Amino acid sequence: MPNALINHQVRLAARPVGLPTRADWSFTSEAVPELGDGDVLVKTLYLSLDPAMRGWMNEGKSYIAPVGIGEVMRAGGVGQVVASKNAAFVVGDHVNAGLGVQEYCLIPAKALKGSGIFKIDPRLGTPTQWLNVLGMPGMTAYFGLMDVGQPKAGETLVVSGAAGAVGQTVGQVAKILGCRVVGIAGGASKCDWVVRELGFDACIDYKAGAVREGLKQHCPDGVDIYFDNVGGDILDTVLTRINRKARIIICGAISQYNNTTPVKGPANYLSLLVNRARMEGIVVFDYADRYPQAVAELAGYLRSGKMKSKEDVVVGLSTFPEALLKLFNGENFGKLVLQVAS
Amino acid sequence: MPNALINHQVRLAARPVGLPTRADWSFTSEAVPELGDGDVLVKTLYLSLDPAMRGWMNEGKSYIAPVGIGEVMRAGGVGQVVASKNAAFVVGDHVNAGLGVQEYCLIPAKALKGSGIFKIDPRLGTPTQWLNVLGMPGMTAYFGLMDVGQPKAGETLVVSGAAGAVGQTVGQVAKILGCRVVGIAGGASKCDWVVRELGFDACIDYKAGAVREGLKQHCPDGVDIYFDNVGGDILDTVLTRINRKARIIICGAISQYNNTTPVKGPANYLSLLVNRARMEGIVVFDYADRYPQAVAELAGYLRSGKMKSKEDVVVGLSTFPEALLKLFNGENFGKLVLQVAS
Repeated sequence: MPNALINHQVRLAARPVGLPTRADWSFTSEAVPELGDGDVLVKTLYLSLDPAMRGWMNEGKSYIAPVGIGEVMRAGGVGQVVASKNAAFVVGDHVNAGLGVQEYCLIPAKALKGSGIFKIDPRLGTPTQWLNVLGMPGMTAYFGLMDVGQPKAGETLVVSGAAGAVGQTVGQVAKILGCRVVGIAGGASKCDWVVRELGFDACIDYKAGAVREGLKQHCPDGVDIYFDNVGGDILDTVLTRINRKARIIICGAISQYNNTTPVKGPANYLSLLVNRARMEGIVVFDYADRYPQAVAELAGYLRSGKMKSKEDVVVGLSTFPEALLKLFNGENFGKLVLQVAS
Repeated sequence: MPNALINHQVRLAARPVGLPTRADWSFTSEAVPELGDGDVLVKTLYLSLDPAMRGWMNEGKSYIAPVGIGEVMRAGGVGQVVASKNAAFVVGDHVNAGLGVQEYCLIPAKALKGSGIFKIDPRLGTPTQWLNVLGMPGMTAYFGLMDVGQPKAGETLVVSGAAGAVGQTVGQVAKILGCRVVGIAGGASKCDWVVRELGFDACIDYKAGAVREGLKQHCPDGVDIYFDNVGGDILDTVLTRINRKARIIICGAISQYNNTTPVKGPANYLSLLVNRARMEGIVVFDYADRYPQAVAELAGYLRSGKMKSKEDVVVGLSTFPEALLKLFNGENFGKLVLQVAS
């Protein structure tokens, strides 16, 4: 193995109030330890920056434990094996794993099984595609849409965060399945891209403020499926337009993650009663045993040109604090990734 | 047919703001018209007073059209056929139908099919039981529990409005199915009754204010099914205690029906995400073709003593405005019915 490697890291220094600031992080470096029997050392290439990371920074029970103060910030990413004392991994293998916001991740033998590490096939997609359509966002989109959304051809699907990581895959898969697809995104350039490049039927610019009117115009037959990545006022507005037996997939609520006041609950939730509709949460990890099937399907769409995959790449580990904020001010255009090495 | 019958009626005079007052009603009387071919005349015995009636008094789209100003107030009830020019009904038949808040209801031949009228078998239950366990509340409880709740033996079910019409059946059926059943009701006497007479495992008195603590104490393994009749703060509190893959049946939100401010949405709805849980609305009319099966099952439980049915009977058509309010101040103890004749 390479000797005397220095690992630069970003650690959680404090629990943020509202938007995380640079003061909530600390930058450390340490030597990469020697590998023991069965260990694998992965060099980080690209890290996935996700809205869910904001939740991991809070105290309190969630679907996953919070990151402890002083710990390396949790992050999924794609890396390359640079040293291995494990027969299942050889130097040069590309892997997707919970690498953390650091340059190197030593995965001990005993932690390998629970680490979610898996080898990726570079022929199916680029490293950043493996963090987007072929990664957690794509899996979230695919299983949320298929298992909770249960789309049927001819139905109308609305997806918020349409130009984001999950939204782009949700909408494109729904189009392939024959749905009418209407996105909601922030700004004219994202909306244009979603319609022109991804083939959505329409996209509503929430920053222009006319979500209600946009839904009336672009969903003349109401909304059968709403894939919600944002929560807040947009969820409440869509609830006024749902059809009987509509399905609302609760995937996230990015509008609420940096709240310093209580979360705004959907005041129009009784529309679920009137319309015999359903609102259901999804956590992607539940579908781990079906990822390979979904990856194969989505990689096929990418290869045949039926789907596109857009990533927004920010370069450099040290830019992590500011890069993460792009998610919350809506600046990212496509799946946000941090390039740590190449 | 009887001649020159006078029909006393209660009509909606104004759309209430907040709790309905006597000024929102008008009292009218008119002669019962002559029957045409195929018509049926029903004498009202008991009317069902339901929280949903408050919604029908509002302007605006719901699962059913609002009652028009000047129209006889909509109400389901049990009556007896007193005149018939229809071969399917003979004088003396007991029926369940949308009779309205009036002494007589003439159902025209052409409206018979859509009126929801059906003959009831007095051997299966008393007229008031036919408005409770064997009527709409019982059907709502049964199908909401079975189709959305999907209870499994050993699971924990919580039901609000536990001493009310829907709640009493939800809890008793869930007990029969082997669930741990915890009610939420207002006041010690209702809570005692729910535990001692209906056999719930526990009942939390929300008027005593300790819903959160009560849930912790009585649902040590969390909540798998929550049957929600009340909405508001109780829904929000239960959301903090649900288990993975929990099912929340949205049946009503009586705490919100007389609001003059916007409905309070469930601020803790992201618990659905964390727990991969579902919140789903139910409207009983969707199950009309399966009522007979449910009635047979529930009547069997009544007959064998496995289930009890409690009605709160208020006497006299003219007391309707005040009787209805018992629902909203929680005064009713059991299914609220108005006895119009006997």
